[in-house]
Amino acid sequence: MKKFVNDPKQFVPEMLKGIALANPDTITYVPEYNLIMRADAPNNDKVSIIQGSGSGHEPAHVMVVGPGMLDAACPGDVFAAPPSDYVYQTAKLLASDKGVLLLVNNYTGDKMAFEMAQELAEADGIKAATLFINDDVAVQDSLYTVGRRGVAGNFFVMKAVGAKAEEGAELEEVVRVGELVNSVTRTMGIALTACTPPAKGAPLFDLGDDEIEVGVGIHGEPGRRRAKMVGADEIVDELLGAVVPDLPYRPGDRVALMINGLGGTPISELYLLFGIAAQKLADMGITVARSYVGEYCTSLEMAGASLTLVKLDDEIETLLAAPASVVARIF
Amino acid sequence: MKKFVNDPKQFVPEMLKGIALANPDTITYVPEYNLIMRADAPNNDKVSIIQGSGSGHEPAHVMVVGPGMLDAACPGDVFAAPPSDYVYQTAKLLASDKGVLLLVNNYTGDKMAFEMAQELAEADGIKAATLFINDDVAVQDSLYTVGRRGVAGNFFVMKAVGAKAEEGAELEEVVRVGELVNSVTRTMGIALTACTPPAKGAPLFDLGDDEIEVGVGIHGEPGRRRAKMVGADEIVDELLGAVVPDLPYRPGDRVALMINGLGGTPISELYLLFGIAAQKLADMGITVARSYVGEYCTSLEMAGASLTLVKLDDEIETLLAAPASVVARIF
Repeated sequence: MKKFVNDPKQFVPEMLKGIALANPDTITYVPEYNLIMRADAPNNDKVSIIQGSGSGHEPAHVMVVGPGMLDAACPGDVFAAPPSDYVYQTAKLLASDKGVLLLVNNYTGDKMAFEMAQELAEADGIKAATLFINDDVAVQDSLYTVGRRGVAGNFFVMKAVGAKAEEGAELEEVVRVGELVNSVTRTMGIALTACTPPAKGAPLFDLGDDEIEVGVGIHGEPGRRRAKMVGADEIVDELLGAVVPDLPYRPGDRVALMINGLGGTPISELYLLFGIAAQKLADMGITVARSYVGEYCTSLEMAGASLTLVKLDDEIETLLAAPASVVARIF
Repeated sequence: MKKFVNDPKQFVPEMLKGIALANPDTITYVPEYNLIMRADAPNNDKVSIIQGSGSGHEPAHVMVVGPGMLDAACPGDVFAAPPSDYVYQTAKLLASDKGVLLLVNNYTGDKMAFEMAQELAEADGIKAATLFINDDVAVQDSLYTVGRRGVAGNFFVMKAVGAKAEEGAELEEVVRVGELVNSVTRTMGIALTACTPPAKGAPLFDLGDDEIEVGVGIHGEPGRRRAKMVGADEIVDELLGAVVPDLPYRPGDRVALMINGLGGTPISELYLLFGIAAQKLADMGITVARSYVGEYCTSLEMAGASLTLVKLDDEIETLLAAPASVVARIF
């Protein structure tokens, strides 16, 4: 294993310490609960937005804490859900008069941790709600889920609820917006390589020199099938062919298009995919009104990419365009 | 080779088309000269800033075009200097009353192309200057240079001259600022893997499963030595041990610290390195006043990182903090 790491068990805390040192004025790191939060949170005039998940998906979620996005992120170890007690402690620290919204990608471990944390928080009198994100069209149930997985499309839910919360909206209204965005967001990814969790020290799965995993999960879980490597045009056809009919997205629709890198793919290749996808969508009569190219939700150093579409209306477009400022400069 | 690519010969144009489609209102792509420029350039009230280099270093330089940074970037093919005629045509398109500044990383091929382009532009009556960037401390002369190479520290020169040009400064003053920043900027990098140019289809060099290249160049050129893989603490010691004494940076100095990813290293590892380096600098009495973590100047999908220090004074700090907006959201 060749990674920039000291003791693999300290990989996540050392990363979090780096985030804190790079953002001393805006971010607070709470080592007891493995927690990154806005230095100015909580704010009783807004709903606090919290997301947690396994680590290894950076910038999601510890690097998207800031005004207009998350108020806090409580990560677990690499590809492991955070302990429910840490989520509970995060909810307590972030408790505001307006309430706390817990965002969760739909994985069984995360779901359990967050549901238990919500119960504990509510027993303390904290107003809380939980919203599950499940944008991945690749498989119905999967290795770690009942139902669809939450992947890079979670960015759009975070962005929308973050913007709505900044407006001072009530918790119910913030939840409505998050559910709306989740309902019109669809994603599928393709892996060109596996990835190596630091504490494991070996690749999560084996992929041949000429093979790709179509519909891969963000923890390297199997997708729809193994296939032979093909050109970028065919890969975009495969991704659009899965994503477009699923909602479906129709001629005349305005969409946000995201090409998300899975960690090891250079941004040059992501823009190449974006150009092909934008052209093919235009040919279908679908207008790309907002563009996102880069790393939003990764799988350590996995080479690969995912494609996300969000069907826009005026409300969603305004929320996505609202100002925001986070650790990783991703929009 | 597993990359998102169609015909490898079309890799760069297809990437540039993607950049243009993702930024339809702010960026113009000129296919004849392989050129990306601000849609609102040239502006006769400011010096036009142009940088070119081989492709494969994205976001440098085609994705850092925008207000406060470059007015145009004219890339060559992957790891190949742009043709001097394309640089000349770029200078003509960007000609402004205030003049044109050509930024060049110090490589023999780029130097020749830009010097010839400057001569041609001046023969047309265009006021032009060229500034060479050479921040890499790893080796004195190298495979492709007489003198030191220009690597990720070029970001700081671009940022400073971009900000100065936005103020409406004269060409000589913009050059002075660029030379000042280059003179206090030092970088060294370490590669964990090689990278594969699309048209070559095979890795540029071989590196053993437990080996690293200390002082690697951004085209995979040899650095100071091959070494065995070590922990992150030791790697930071190696990088600081080369960079700090070179200027030298001294106790009491304020610096910008950049940890730049070489393309295949996840941002989690970059923040881990940042945290270690920031702590070690603090222990030396050197204050990290500005923080940069992410991909600024890459080598395709190479795993690895570089560390850059810039010694700050009030003038440089103000220029680095000035607003800017580019294709890749890197600050």
